Amino acid sequence: MPDQTSQKQKQKQKPPGHGALRADAQENRDRILRAAREAFAAQGIDVPVAAIARRAGVGVATLYRRFPTRDSLVTEAFAEELSHCVSVLDDALADPDPWRGFCTVIEKVCLMQAADRGFTQAFLTEFPDQADFARERSRAEENLALLVRRAKDAGGLRQDFEPSDVTLLLLANCGVTVGSGEDAATASRRLAAYLLQAFRAETATALPPPARLDLRRVGGPSA
Amino acid sequence: MPDQTSQKQKQKQKPPGHGALRADAQENRDRILRAAREAFAAQGIDVPVAAIARRAGVGVATLYRRFPTRDSLVTEAFAEELSHCVSVLDDALADPDPWRGFCTVIEKVCLMQAADRGFTQAFLTEFPDQADFARERSRAEENLALLVRRAKDAGGLRQDFEPSDVTLLLLANCGVTVGSGEDAATASRRLAAYLLQAFRAETATALPPPARLDLRRVGGPSA
Repeated sequence: MPDQTSQKQKQKQKPPGHGALRADAQENRDRILRAAREAFAAQGIDVPVAAIARRAGVGVATLYRRFPTRDSLVTEAFAEELSHCVSVLDDALADPDPWRGFCTVIEKVCLMQAADRGFTQAFLTEFPDQADFARERSRAEENLALLVRRAKDAGGLRQDFEPSDVTLLLLANCGVTVGSGEDAATASRRLAAYLLQAFRAETATALPPPARLDLRRVGGPSA
Repeated sequence: MPDQTSQKQKQKQKPPGHGALRADAQENRDRILRAAREAFAAQGIDVPVAAIARRAGVGVATLYRRFPTRDSLVTEAFAEELSHCVSVLDDALADPDPWRGFCTVIEKVCLMQAADRGFTQAFLTEFPDQADFARERSRAEENLALLVRRAKDAGGLRQDFEPSDVTLLLLANCGVTVGSGEDAATASRRLAAYLLQAFRAETATALPPPARLDLRRVGGPSA
């Protein structure tokens, strides 16, 4: 079994001659990842491994040979989306208007959540043995915190915006996307637009206190 | 079995000499309703009837003797909350400031939803044979529509607020309350405050189009 890093490179770029897997093994691997992504997107990351194997048309033993732990399957399935998320944040930090950057991040993350039920869950779950995933995730969280600070300093984002309000937004968006079926993207866009209006510094009036919502809340079984 | 109306009167006022149920039967009835309310609040209205009977400490046959259909149990369990909801709307319509009335309704309904997972579901489910419940519900919906119109006319509520935005808010609040556990009320209050700021006419900027969200959306299995 190659290590996480070379797996990820393989999955993304499929370099010729990587050589660790025979062609049929590679095909199984791709098929399992595809099935896992579809299942996670539709039902969240708690789908039984057996259901993913069935969907992929492989045996459970084959699945475990490619992905010895459930965590390795989840993190591999979402590696690309996590990278996308990190690059969305990098772009936002490069925007000369931090408030515009913040709005873009919120809009894009809400749409990612609407398109894929599993992603926010995966993003927010601790995978102790998946160092690469954890590192990327930490980078995303730090960049978000930095963006929030800059958007406040620039006078765009209200001063009483709390880190837990990101969680509040993701939980709200989760309820909206899960509940609105095929209209998820439209509903999510409208919710994000409403909340961004409420987050603007110039419209701010007093708010009730924030809830103690750690970001990990969103990854729970009900999310 | 007495009809719905007399059942409801009995449950609310327990008039002496109503006489349809013996003391032990009445006690069973109360116990079942209490168990049903607790179960619906915690898990939503799809809890199996057998689980409610177990919680109440009665047999399933006894439960069905008191409540011959599941619908009769659900509507009876929520009759009081529905009346409360109707009176919240009546009060709001009596407020000389329709925008303030609208805000109060949103805040109260969000807190009701946070306190009781089952209520919004029950409110939004069709119960074809429960005419009393349906009548109260229709009254609540008509009054809400009237309040929205008045709040717009008075210049408090933005003109592009759509009926489906009430559904959007309830779905968002559902996600927030389900996901935030014991902090549900605090989180719900903060979400409602943010959204009400976004709904105000004076802060309105262009919004993406509304989703086709019928209120019935909130009552689904995922709510």
